[in-house]
Amino acid sequence: MPAEMIRRERIFNTLRKVFERYGFSPLESPALESWELLSKKGGLGEEAVKDIFRFKDKAGREVGLRFDLTVPLARIVVANPQLPKPFKRYQISRVWRYEEVRRGRYREFWQADIDVVGSASMLADAEVLAVAVDALQALGFKRFYIRLNDRKVLENLVTLAGIPSQKFLPTCRALDKLQKIGTKKVGEELKVLGIKRKSIQKVFSFIGLKGTNRELLKKAKRLGVQVANLEEVLRYAKEYGIVENLKVDFSLARGLDYYTGPVYEAMISGKEEIGAVAAGGRYDDLIKLFGGPPTPATGISFGVERIDALLAERKIEIPSTKTKVFVANATPQVRVEALHLAQHLRTDGLAVETDVMERKLERQLEYADSLGIPYVLILGKKELEKSVVRVRDMKKRVEEEVSMKKVSEWLQKRGQ
Amino acid sequence: MPAEMIRRERIFNTLRKVFERYGFSPLESPALESWELLSKKGGLGEEAVKDIFRFKDKAGREVGLRFDLTVPLARIVVANPQLPKPFKRYQISRVWRYEEVRRGRYREFWQADIDVVGSASMLADAEVLAVAVDALQALGFKRFYIRLNDRKVLENLVTLAGIPSQKFLPTCRALDKLQKIGTKKVGEELKVLGIKRKSIQKVFSFIGLKGTNRELLKKAKRLGVQVANLEEVLRYAKEYGIVENLKVDFSLARGLDYYTGPVYEAMISGKEEIGAVAAGGRYDDLIKLFGGPPTPATGISFGVERIDALLAERKIEIPSTKTKVFVANATPQVRVEALHLAQHLRTDGLAVETDVMERKLERQLEYADSLGIPYVLILGKKELEKSVVRVRDMKKRVEEEVSMKKVSEWLQKRGQ
Repeated sequence: MPAEMIRRERIFNTLRKVFERYGFSPLESPALESWELLSKKGGLGEEAVKDIFRFKDKAGREVGLRFDLTVPLARIVVANPQLPKPFKRYQISRVWRYEEVRRGRYREFWQADIDVVGSASMLADAEVLAVAVDALQALGFKRFYIRLNDRKVLENLVTLAGIPSQKFLPTCRALDKLQKIGTKKVGEELKVLGIKRKSIQKVFSFIGLKGTNRELLKKAKRLGVQVANLEEVLRYAKEYGIVENLKVDFSLARGLDYYTGPVYEAMISGKEEIGAVAAGGRYDDLIKLFGGPPTPATGISFGVERIDALLAERKIEIPSTKTKVFVANATPQVRVEALHLAQHLRTDGLAVETDVMERKLERQLEYADSLGIPYVLILGKKELEKSVVRVRDMKKRVEEEVSMKKVSEWLQKRGQ
Repeated sequence: MPAEMIRRERIFNTLRKVFERYGFSPLESPALESWELLSKKGGLGEEAVKDIFRFKDKAGREVGLRFDLTVPLARIVVANPQLPKPFKRYQISRVWRYEEVRRGRYREFWQADIDVVGSASMLADAEVLAVAVDALQALGFKRFYIRLNDRKVLENLVTLAGIPSQKFLPTCRALDKLQKIGTKKVGEELKVLGIKRKSIQKVFSFIGLKGTNRELLKKAKRLGVQVANLEEVLRYAKEYGIVENLKVDFSLARGLDYYTGPVYEAMISGKEEIGAVAAGGRYDDLIKLFGGPPTPATGISFGVERIDALLAERKIEIPSTKTKVFVANATPQVRVEALHLAQHLRTDGLAVETDVMERKLERQLEYADSLGIPYVLILGKKELEKSVVRVRDMKKRVEEEVSMKKVSEWLQKRGQ
């Protein structure tokens, strides 16, 4: 509905502005991709692939609707090797994921992504995190934090725990469900994968470590786990002034197969049950996987629906229409003059509605009121003779006469 | 690519602004709809339906990607009977139409639609046409016209020519191809429909009528064809100041089945071969067809790709990046200070990039240049000591020293 869409556009515009401040440029990718690309091993991963909308086109080729904005980006990078690196793009678009159809609706989400393609430096990860912090603040969130881990840490851990490396990705997929299904069920999933009890215990004891960022890194090092990436990200994050927003959390795994380095999830304090409002990480192998040269990359994706739900909870008053004024005719004989006045005000850049229903005055006023249009100009024969209009403030329910010549200025002075 | 996307966003923003000036509010509809809705008889029509991307979801239900933005709008109107009327919405989104796949790409188009739902008055059609004229002017087109006809005129004509009414829609679909395949082939298609030679001749002689709007309406009336809608649209169009842009053309039919009244197509003079840049019409029966109460509606759809192609031809210089400045470090030792300066400039609202590749100065400059970033700030040890930066104007290839404190102001003064 328009009121929701106006709220959503505010989110889009806020994000866009922050992204552009960091030098990210807009890009659009197609919604349809070949099934081969979407389901490629080492890409999204087998669990995600199950949720892709998949079908055959008329030529019999299998295609699917994009599941995320990262896979299509990687394909574009492969197809355009001439792009200067780093290629920093943002995209605010829909993705589709299968879920049981309710009331005839399908699962479509809006995602807002930024990615830095071509940089292996942790500077890029720190920048992505700085954008996330800036964006969440610009959206109006005061208390939030970003969970931070590194797939390299988990890989290291899995090896130290004696788990064979081919079970690393399935382990990550299982760990990704910790917050949803709890430790016990994740433990059972790991058991089903054929991982030994002792190994599972080792993993759980490590990912359950608590403490400040500094303490956690120290403990990890003591256990022989490599944390060089995390140290570097935190060092740069300090320079970006966002280190206070980062919370090292060894239990963070992320569910998609393509992550290879730092991974992150932004949480709103006290609203953890809603899940991450933004999430991402480094995926250094994806572009190579799709046939391009080895190209490191990192990025984050904002979940627009979740952000919207949280902002809606706060009941910030947002106008339900962008229309500033309705020009009403008191009688059909002055309809044409009302129309001329509306056109004149539009030339001055005002957002104006006028009657296109051939309605009586009262019904015109009801309509303007139902939409929440703040001002109505009433034009009748009497007003026309005097070259004035009656301006009704729809909130205060007061009217005043304003000269026809000055009404545009009068309205422009009153910001909505 | 970003440069194309920046050009496209200018089109979106221009259209959005004009739409909002007329009181249209944003709305988004899902990309996926049930096949039953998309293929409903009397809706898009059998020729269009062939081009819909159609597939089965996991539950075995048939769904399709939207072919236009009108059918999903009609469904939303049916589902939300509480919406105040007129419901004036705009939507800038993608639609999908099947076409032979070339180089792995699928047919996705951007459409920008406005619709007035709930008004049977020709005032609504005139307003839609006024928005079209305003929008095309705002986009920078100087010479264009809108072809105008009425499905009621064609219905009347078909009856007068002795063609059975059940052949009316197939006749419209055939006439819609006139500009693409020519009179001869359309005549053959009509013959295949079982329409008599004499009837075909009558139709062609009528739709071939030439003259001014006034002359055409006069001729039609003399032949007993009803032109009341067109007269009224033209009368209101005069009040909107757009009558000079309208060109009555009895050969205009439009291809979709749902049109019931005035139909329109905007053409750029001298660029007719590219086809209409905007097209639409009245569809008074569609909402009822989908199970709603009888609800008249009218609207127009802008073809963003065609508009973009025409604007690109003119080679209007549009910046290829939105980034205003790149903060370069002359040596890794001042990287952190460059980063601080970048963050400071961002706080002031500037769009800033900085090195995330750990590159040497020369490569940083090359990168900024390849992106078309207009200014580079160079920060070295020497500059840092003096609290200045070297500002390089990348176009003029000149440098000057600016104090660190004043550089934000210096940049803000220079509009991109």
